[in-house]
Amino acid sequence: MNTDIRNEHWSIHEWQNQIDELLEVSDQPHALFNINEDDTREYDAIFLGGGAGGRFGSAYLRAMGGRQLIIERWPFLGGSCPHNACVPHHLFSECAAELMLQRTMAGRLWFQDLTGVVTSIKDVVDVFRKGRVGPHAIMNYQSKEQLDLEYVLNAEGTIIDPHTVEVAGRRFKAKNLVLGLGARAQMLTCPGAHLKGIFSYESLVEDLDYEPGNTVVVIGGSKTAVEYGCFFNATGRRTIFVVRTELLKLIHDLETRGFVIDRMKEQGIEIWEGSEVEHFTDNGHGHVASVQIRTPDGIQTVHTDFVFAGLGETPNSEMASKVLGVKIGAKNEVLVNPQLQTSVPHVYAIGDLIGGPMEMFKARKSGTYAARHIMGEEIAYDPQDWPDFMHTHYEVSWMGLSEEAARAQYENIITIKMPPDTPDGLDVALPASDRTMLYAFLEPRMSGFQKLIIDEASRRVVGAHHVGYGAKDSFQYLYQLMKQGLTIDQLGDMDELFLNPTHFIQLSRLRAGHRKLKNL
Amino acid sequence: MNTDIRNEHWSIHEWQNQIDELLEVSDQPHALFNINEDDTREYDAIFLGGGAGGRFGSAYLRAMGGRQLIIERWPFLGGSCPHNACVPHHLFSECAAELMLQRTMAGRLWFQDLTGVVTSIKDVVDVFRKGRVGPHAIMNYQSKEQLDLEYVLNAEGTIIDPHTVEVAGRRFKAKNLVLGLGARAQMLTCPGAHLKGIFSYESLVEDLDYEPGNTVVVIGGSKTAVEYGCFFNATGRRTIFVVRTELLKLIHDLETRGFVIDRMKEQGIEIWEGSEVEHFTDNGHGHVASVQIRTPDGIQTVHTDFVFAGLGETPNSEMASKVLGVKIGAKNEVLVNPQLQTSVPHVYAIGDLIGGPMEMFKARKSGTYAARHIMGEEIAYDPQDWPDFMHTHYEVSWMGLSEEAARAQYENIITIKMPPDTPDGLDVALPASDRTMLYAFLEPRMSGFQKLIIDEASRRVVGAHHVGYGAKDSFQYLYQLMKQGLTIDQLGDMDELFLNPTHFIQLSRLRAGHRKLKNL
Repeated sequence: MNTDIRNEHWSIHEWQNQIDELLEVSDQPHALFNINEDDTREYDAIFLGGGAGGRFGSAYLRAMGGRQLIIERWPFLGGSCPHNACVPHHLFSECAAELMLQRTMAGRLWFQDLTGVVTSIKDVVDVFRKGRVGPHAIMNYQSKEQLDLEYVLNAEGTIIDPHTVEVAGRRFKAKNLVLGLGARAQMLTCPGAHLKGIFSYESLVEDLDYEPGNTVVVIGGSKTAVEYGCFFNATGRRTIFVVRTELLKLIHDLETRGFVIDRMKEQGIEIWEGSEVEHFTDNGHGHVASVQIRTPDGIQTVHTDFVFAGLGETPNSEMASKVLGVKIGAKNEVLVNPQLQTSVPHVYAIGDLIGGPMEMFKARKSGTYAARHIMGEEIAYDPQDWPDFMHTHYEVSWMGLSEEAARAQYENIITIKMPPDTPDGLDVALPASDRTMLYAFLEPRMSGFQKLIIDEASRRVVGAHHVGYGAKDSFQYLYQLMKQGLTIDQLGDMDELFLNPTHFIQLSRLRAGHRKLKNL
Repeated sequence: MNTDIRNEHWSIHEWQNQIDELLEVSDQPHALFNINEDDTREYDAIFLGGGAGGRFGSAYLRAMGGRQLIIERWPFLGGSCPHNACVPHHLFSECAAELMLQRTMAGRLWFQDLTGVVTSIKDVVDVFRKGRVGPHAIMNYQSKEQLDLEYVLNAEGTIIDPHTVEVAGRRFKAKNLVLGLGARAQMLTCPGAHLKGIFSYESLVEDLDYEPGNTVVVIGGSKTAVEYGCFFNATGRRTIFVVRTELLKLIHDLETRGFVIDRMKEQGIEIWEGSEVEHFTDNGHGHVASVQIRTPDGIQTVHTDFVFAGLGETPNSEMASKVLGVKIGAKNEVLVNPQLQTSVPHVYAIGDLIGGPMEMFKARKSGTYAARHIMGEEIAYDPQDWPDFMHTHYEVSWMGLSEEAARAQYENIITIKMPPDTPDGLDVALPASDRTMLYAFLEPRMSGFQKLIIDEASRRVVGAHHVGYGAKDSFQYLYQLMKQGLTIDQLGDMDELFLNPTHFIQLSRLRAGHRKLKNL
């Protein structure tokens, strides 16, 4: 059964109910068609996949006056982010931050004593599952009523040729095809990896139907692994990271990484580096019962009913490769040029499908750049550098060079840091700002770390690193200023909103008077 | 007794102990002299007052190669901010945010049920009082060991003439005198205003020695009043704002102000506008027992043992006016030109002493600009416009024009908002980001508000407004970009760190494709 919704103008709440129903009866084919049958123009592009890239690409193309169609297998636009990726991760990371605060303050002021209390993982997952249709509904509403997009939802599209996609019994033709088919979590391959109780970020929010026991094994050492692992740890569970090489190699600045890992360890997290899972054992009912881990000290067995694998993602390039013959790279990604064109004429690819960085900004921007190229603009998009962040129990933000890379590249590097680089610096009440004030006053070592890296000769900021809260947003804009050549003098001349999470403005001002700069 | 500490090199922790002791025996004169007796040069400037302006001005002057001396009555540098102003306010606002979250989530997930529980105000004040020497110690340490400043602490300086200050029995001479004597809380003048239990931000952290009862009267409607009042409300007390005109007039954008005030009211705050205190009654022991308030509906009596007055500040200009004859303005501020020079040659004034904006950035920057002028640089400093923020239970940040002012100034204004401007928009789970995720999923109306204001013709951002968390820091940098002429197209081309607290980048990108812009 298909429904033509072109003349429906559902409110966000009505959309919420529709999506809820469609997600519940997902076994019955039921496509929603929002097609402007009055528009007789050929489509400039079909976006196969309505995730971040497809939706933003469509919005841009439509705004430029073109005609587009999104075909999306889920009953909502926005893709994996609001359904099982960035949004649940943010909810879990918020719980991690909040639980760490409440545990640290236990029994002080008005805080309850959570010592020894293991809080529910399943309840938080349930909160997410129940609420996620809210953001979904906004995307559908906004895309139809505000962005004037055409789309077909809740039906898998099949590529017929570079100009044709079939969906729910109809064929659509377009001048161009834009593939935005995303990526999927990489799975473990060792014996027992199929057992129940072994989750990826995707299956966790879809499938978790029991309360995990008191021990968690997290496999992997990168963003996803650490973000979920810190949440599990914050719930009060023993949490062991099994990492093939090193934890958090993506944080290049060694001092920043050290601060992050030290705080994780203080929260009781165990990090087993140079280690790998050998196999999982079955509890006799198809559920994981234990994990055998090869460590530098020999084989270790951990009994657990809950394993999380954060091993990265594989682009969903199979259909495009098979049907269209688009060229694929070593990591299964669809290869594109800076115009987002694949090896097949009129076929573009965007988002996670084209490989790293698998970040939201790249998904969305690659979509809009593909749209602009389709509409005749000369563009090039090939991200080489960007500000970045991740969650532990904290927000960790960084941009530009690590101190080590800066020292390799420039003759003389100045650093400006907080806490001060003194023997007792870590135990003093600075840095401090929104969301770290209670730490600053009661557990100062937990109030964060920040470092600015400056090339002495040019006086330019070449890197910045922050562990704490409330600086992630500013790194988006500070990065732009850094790319313009921001100097310590310009930074010191800005107007701080004190107590600012990045203390960079005022700390720079304390040193900017020097002709020959000094560390602080 | 005076102590020469020039050759002491105390750690931050040792400084902490020193300051603690000096604050406890404040009735005994005991100055600390950190004077470089080997330097035979005349001082370029004496900074009278070692608050934000004096300390930053000194640091800048010293970095430029000049010689300076700070004379400070307290045993620490940094002034009122870490002692009784911005730092305690941030701690209290953090408690307000945290208590609102815990009360809102009461009984859900792992949250304790705080329904009906009144939490201690005094305990939080005590935490601050006990911890504030930490930041003090850092200032003293940093100023001596890292910034190489000379200073005399814990002794009142007396101005002798434009080149001479006497302190603890010694006279110091300098080419210039920089006055950084700050401001003090304005006091109520109505009958009973002298009673115990009526506090300003200063006296609250110095004098509170009992647990306030369950009703609080807050007098005033500006930043300080609201910041403290929201904390008192969050502790579970009935909180009444008595405001002569309107609450929060400083938030110019009416929609933003409306959102802020609606959320305050939902927390149970009572706002009595057009009202004034007539007098306070005594409980027979010199403590306030009730407040008589003239309201538009007649006289109301509120029984309370705890009143907070947030009425603004008066510059401490009396000594300078009397001894030096510097010209004073209508609000008791020392008048200066853009070179920070007073009406008396060689006498500069900086910080809160010169009047509004009494903000940290102005205090510090006026100090550094005075230093640069003294050292021969041609400078001008006269802040007309700046990004701004305040706390309610939220962080509220703004910059540039309100929507109303923008519409008056430009032919066509575009707004880009979250939550979406629909009948059910407020009750949907966006905006959402760090520290609002639990609200987004469980109490969506509490997850914040944000608005970008764009001049359609130039496509430039002319204003931005945000209620939530984690955007304050970014407004510092976004403001710089706005001043450069930031367009919606440039904004849409940035790399968002999703879920970013300001959704401005991605929301702009959804509209930037339009030649003729549209609201979102």
